[in-house]
Amino acid sequence: MSDTTKLLDFLQQRVPADDASHKMLCTTVLPALVDAVADIARVLRAASAVSQVGTANAFGDDQLNVDISSEEAVRKALDSCSAVVTASSEEDPVEKPNGCRPEWPPAHAEDDAREEVYTVAFDPLDGSSIIAPNWSVGTILGVWRGASALHQSPKQRQVAAVLGVYGPRTTAVVALRIPGTSPLCFEVAVGEQGADDSLVVRADVKFADAPFKTRYFAPANLRAAAEDENYMKLVTHYIQNKYTLRYSGGLVPDVVHALVKGHGVYVSPVTAASKAKLRRLYELFPLALIVECAGGKAIDPATGSDILEHASVDTDERAGLVCGTAEEVEFVSKSLLG
Amino acid sequence: MSDTTKLLDFLQQRVPADDASHKMLCTTVLPALVDAVADIARVLRAASAVSQVGTANAFGDDQLNVDISSEEAVRKALDSCSAVVTASSEEDPVEKPNGCRPEWPPAHAEDDAREEVYTVAFDPLDGSSIIAPNWSVGTILGVWRGASALHQSPKQRQVAAVLGVYGPRTTAVVALRIPGTSPLCFEVAVGEQGADDSLVVRADVKFADAPFKTRYFAPANLRAAAEDENYMKLVTHYIQNKYTLRYSGGLVPDVVHALVKGHGVYVSPVTAASKAKLRRLYELFPLALIVECAGGKAIDPATGSDILEHASVDTDERAGLVCGTAEEVEFVSKSLLG
Repeated sequence: MSDTTKLLDFLQQRVPADDASHKMLCTTVLPALVDAVADIARVLRAASAVSQVGTANAFGDDQLNVDISSEEAVRKALDSCSAVVTASSEEDPVEKPNGCRPEWPPAHAEDDAREEVYTVAFDPLDGSSIIAPNWSVGTILGVWRGASALHQSPKQRQVAAVLGVYGPRTTAVVALRIPGTSPLCFEVAVGEQGADDSLVVRADVKFADAPFKTRYFAPANLRAAAEDENYMKLVTHYIQNKYTLRYSGGLVPDVVHALVKGHGVYVSPVTAASKAKLRRLYELFPLALIVECAGGKAIDPATGSDILEHASVDTDERAGLVCGTAEEVEFVSKSLLG
Repeated sequence: MSDTTKLLDFLQQRVPADDASHKMLCTTVLPALVDAVADIARVLRAASAVSQVGTANAFGDDQLNVDISSEEAVRKALDSCSAVVTASSEEDPVEKPNGCRPEWPPAHAEDDAREEVYTVAFDPLDGSSIIAPNWSVGTILGVWRGASALHQSPKQRQVAAVLGVYGPRTTAVVALRIPGTSPLCFEVAVGEQGADDSLVVRADVKFADAPFKTRYFAPANLRAAAEDENYMKLVTHYIQNKYTLRYSGGLVPDVVHALVKGHGVYVSPVTAASKAKLRRLYELFPLALIVECAGGKAIDPATGSDILEHASVDTDERAGLVCGTAEEVEFVSKSLLG
């Protein structure tokens, strides 16, 4: 189950080095994101009391002191990456120049061949509601080729994603899908110092093939089943067929559970009474890339189409999510769409 | 919500010091248990790869390397406590003398008034199935007056319990119910050094009174609902009444969620098809003490009676569990028993 190559060595070995089109991605951008995850882990470990700071982010969510510290940790890590020209996040959802980039948007931003530039779109700390009881929470990071993540094809332009998981230890699941190379999905034990002392503990994170030893389901927004007959039938199907329930209410730990176990389906439907609440740019796109690189499927339950098929035109677009083992996702799609 | 008294000061302030009958409990036993929690947190944080060691414990469960290290951490902490004369655990479920106690059972063990002696019964690491995906897990520790926890009234003889929670940070919920004093239940931010740098972050952990802002449910062993009509009806009741689902599958984080949120009901029924699997001595008794000290209720779903009413005669006795907000527990009791 585990080999323990150093993260930096692994990236060098697995990603063709002769292709200058993604050199900075592997040598500076991904390491900086793993550094940010290590930093956030430190912040959370020291947060003996979690309090609300009394402000709200641009979407109107209450902000916790740890939300702000986590946002700062990612911004600080990105500052050192000259290849990242643009960043935006759930806490500050406007695309802005990263760090002290002299010109923005950069002159060559439209011409990838001339300059290797990236945009990072992220949710610094997902799972606010379960921080107080000390349940695992996560960070979601997406890396896009070019100077913006808006009006871009997620399938072609989002080239990497990182999910940081803060639990008893700190781990990360990383996906890379660089055009012209094989997709990668691997799990990292994040070291105290960040990328420098991080190890790849699972080189190939992959959903298993049938027959499955144990089948897992994670029914988000289950209250919606009270008014949605299809969702209620689906949940009953899982119970009658003896699927195992695991639902923490944290998007990152819930999806990572399926990835690590090799089976699972996460269902967050959108119904008449319950609106879509997951942000495409900061949550859905990175998660979908990870799931697809692990051989799974991530769809929009309202349409049945792949999450990565639809470009975002603004940072606040939202949708539901069904993701995990491909055949389970297809079953849910049929069940919910009727 | 949070004051931040040092743990050792808090114990001195809140527990009447003039009563020599529980002096050692507060000055050495509880601090040692918090030290053990800090130690286990360190072990888990460093466990970059979790592997099975290929042995099984006396109950036949597969043992993980972290199970063994956690067991060792508690035993080591207990070694320094001369007041603890006996210990047993889920990993080594035979009551044995603690450390290098010269005589055992001690001559005065039957006579509490003459010597302050304790037995510790514990589950060093609960939640094996969710360690791989890096979800929060826990430790369960019960402290009994006297030289044995067997054939003793849990209500009168189990005087303290500690739940350690290993998540983004390390926390513990501690309950104390010393005959003749008011019961206490409080939450601790466990420091890196153990008891010495631990802070009480919530001095009174209490279930809320109705009306409840959000109602939570945690349906354990949900597969059992496929064959048990009463359980299926109960789950449908929660969905129809828009309770919020939170179920990690880790007994400690699931119960602590309810304690921290101030509302919740954990339901682990026993049905014809699914046997009782929670050990009374190592899991149910300490959890029940914590829940009762927080103003909640913990019952055996097979009989409806309080978990703490029934003494264990051997270390492997098992039962189901329904615990949490008192009125919710009563509702479950009626629903399951019909």
